[in-house]
Amino acid sequence: MQIYDLIQKTRRLMPLSEREIQMLVEGFTNGEVPDYMMSAWLMAVCCQGLTTAETTALTLAMLDSGDRLDLSSLGAPTVDKHSTGGIGDKTTILVAPIVAACGGIVPKMSGRGLGFTGGTIDKFESIPGFTVNLPHTAFLRILEEVGCCVIAQSGDLTPADKKMYALRNLTATVDSIPLICSSIMCKKLALGADCILLDVKYGSGAFMKTADEAAVLADLMVEVGKQAGRNCRALITDMNAPLGACVGNALEVEEAIRILRGESRGRLTELSLALAAQMLVMLGKGDIVECRQFAEDALTSGRALERLAAMITAQGGDASVTEDLSKMPHAAVQLTVRAPENGYITEIQSEEVGLACLGLGAGRTAYQEEIDPGAGVEFSRFVGDEAVKGEPLFTVYGKTEALCEAAAQRILQAITITENPAEPVKLIYKIVE
Amino acid sequence: MQIYDLIQKTRRLMPLSEREIQMLVEGFTNGEVPDYMMSAWLMAVCCQGLTTAETTALTLAMLDSGDRLDLSSLGAPTVDKHSTGGIGDKTTILVAPIVAACGGIVPKMSGRGLGFTGGTIDKFESIPGFTVNLPHTAFLRILEEVGCCVIAQSGDLTPADKKMYALRNLTATVDSIPLICSSIMCKKLALGADCILLDVKYGSGAFMKTADEAAVLADLMVEVGKQAGRNCRALITDMNAPLGACVGNALEVEEAIRILRGESRGRLTELSLALAAQMLVMLGKGDIVECRQFAEDALTSGRALERLAAMITAQGGDASVTEDLSKMPHAAVQLTVRAPENGYITEIQSEEVGLACLGLGAGRTAYQEEIDPGAGVEFSRFVGDEAVKGEPLFTVYGKTEALCEAAAQRILQAITITENPAEPVKLIYKIVE
Repeated sequence: MQIYDLIQKTRRLMPLSEREIQMLVEGFTNGEVPDYMMSAWLMAVCCQGLTTAETTALTLAMLDSGDRLDLSSLGAPTVDKHSTGGIGDKTTILVAPIVAACGGIVPKMSGRGLGFTGGTIDKFESIPGFTVNLPHTAFLRILEEVGCCVIAQSGDLTPADKKMYALRNLTATVDSIPLICSSIMCKKLALGADCILLDVKYGSGAFMKTADEAAVLADLMVEVGKQAGRNCRALITDMNAPLGACVGNALEVEEAIRILRGESRGRLTELSLALAAQMLVMLGKGDIVECRQFAEDALTSGRALERLAAMITAQGGDASVTEDLSKMPHAAVQLTVRAPENGYITEIQSEEVGLACLGLGAGRTAYQEEIDPGAGVEFSRFVGDEAVKGEPLFTVYGKTEALCEAAAQRILQAITITENPAEPVKLIYKIVE
Repeated sequence: MQIYDLIQKTRRLMPLSEREIQMLVEGFTNGEVPDYMMSAWLMAVCCQGLTTAETTALTLAMLDSGDRLDLSSLGAPTVDKHSTGGIGDKTTILVAPIVAACGGIVPKMSGRGLGFTGGTIDKFESIPGFTVNLPHTAFLRILEEVGCCVIAQSGDLTPADKKMYALRNLTATVDSIPLICSSIMCKKLALGADCILLDVKYGSGAFMKTADEAAVLADLMVEVGKQAGRNCRALITDMNAPLGACVGNALEVEEAIRILRGESRGRLTELSLALAAQMLVMLGKGDIVECRQFAEDALTSGRALERLAAMITAQGGDASVTEDLSKMPHAAVQLTVRAPENGYITEIQSEEVGLACLGLGAGRTAYQEEIDPGAGVEFSRFVGDEAVKGEPLFTVYGKTEALCEAAAQRILQAITITENPAEPVKLIYKIVE
């Protein structure tokens, strides 16, 4: 009868107390609250919302459902970065070594996600030999020696979130701002970094379709982070077009390496430097202008590339890939598509690009599916660029001709070429502190 | 994935097709759609609503989930009456014999309800020997010979509703207008009467708290009934104060018998005559003025009482109770409460009276609980009456002194006595055709 009353309250927009939310989350985690009650409550949350205080209580109850990592032996403040996810978002591969090269410590833990392309973990695993399954002692040692380390979720962290997410995934209760917030934040809090920088994406390739929606999520996450005693900030950034030239797993690692080598620069580099600068400010390394310069120097001096190589070595990978990209896995077939007309590229619908990459095998829709590390797409021209008839627009990589043909068709249709160039879209919409 | 999409649609206010609703209801009934998906959908319906077309499709899908009664062999139109439930509502015990005495056929099937007092079936079962468990052939024979018969739900009627109601009862998804409508109407349609008159109650003792809410439910039920090819009407009636003098099971039967004997008359009699008149109009027995006169004549002539006695005999009961009320079961203890002051009774909160009767054992909160047929309350003064200090206000009937004391306290507090009389409340707020 008690759980019934809690469902009824949320349905009637009456806020639950901290104790009531704890009871619900504990009961659900230990199996006393059946799935059919939880899914009714989750749908009530989707339709009626939660207050900030309720979202904080939910996040903390989910955090309390499992273990937490202990980073205190590092003896220095740590900073975590989380992106809400986007097409071609490989900023972690750039940001972690840049911040480490500036003396910051970046502990990073990811789940093996479902999506258009693999998650951060899948990207790193495309490097030959690289492992994300490390014991806690090794994680701490690498953080101390290298400054950055990326591991897969281990131990019994936030079991409430795992169980709740599985249920949300079956009951159309995924896209709810308080539920997304608590699911992300409880994992961030369990990792235990002192500072948390959130990159909240909006646009066609993101969960949040508009900047305003993204701002609501960002405000809530920052508030929950602060309530939990962490230094927390968010950047709201554009995801209407894919981020950078490459979408895929190995392809994205290669692009990041080229940027760290100084061979390429663009919106992806700008965003990575902006994120790294914020993280350095949060760590107390200086003001935003100074920290931006530290990040820039780490990149151009090659020190960030050296940190990435050290991290790859420490995690069992072949660091020579940073010098020789041919050692990365590559797809059997590649297909270059050329511009069908002259004009300006005004749009590349990132959701369509993501679906095309999923079709190529770069992502998964179920946890047991295997990813093709070499699959994906590399753009030669970006939004804002001129397209010249007959010149390469993009190249598709995949296992078979047929797969590549289908993806190429889909991506070509996702590109809009017009007579006049469009106004450029701001990369960083807003910073939430 | 398909059921996921249906939940998502309802959540996003996108109407489901008839086929989609059938799929959902069929899948849930045969166990293919798990409870946790159904409860999420039910909560989405509670928060976002359904269109009239969706509610009709839901009702018909629930009807199609099981058997239907066949009343065609009766060779004459039949009329069913359904009340959405109220405190002291014993109109069926009056209306069924009145309509039968005017040549109408009233088939009545009820479930064994949960609530403040027993349902219609529990009330009839308080008559010594009376049975509501009759085979279909006996039901038809009694309807033919007597004109009215009341049986318990039998066979596999609307299994979807049974399963869905059980889930709603655990997930705070009971009070939703489209869900209430479909749950009532699928059972009415399965019974198979040609005409359906709905008595939709509003007020403190009813599901719907305001007349406007009740009107929304009434409009929807009448529309669904018509879409299903039935002659369907609704009366919206006041349930702010208990209906009639008695609340309980045997007590309510006794009150009905006294009215049919011509010994008592009041709002309950007025409502019963109004309902009976509407039912006779629907059966084509005349216009509303004529039918009201037919009902009045059936009551005052004693022909309605004679029909009730015939029905009791046909259903195995001791019809001599209609002549000698001492043969009904009576509680061991009775406690009369007198007016503490002079004034006018302006309110009797019917929900509180209901809870007091539940405490006395007149109702049940779980299906396995037994009802005390003699328990309840009888009012000597009603809303609008003068209260004279020291004169009886009401009498409580129960198993023990302690039970009676507690109920008496609660009921006394539910009665408001003021210096000046209040405006009388209209009994029938509206008729929906």
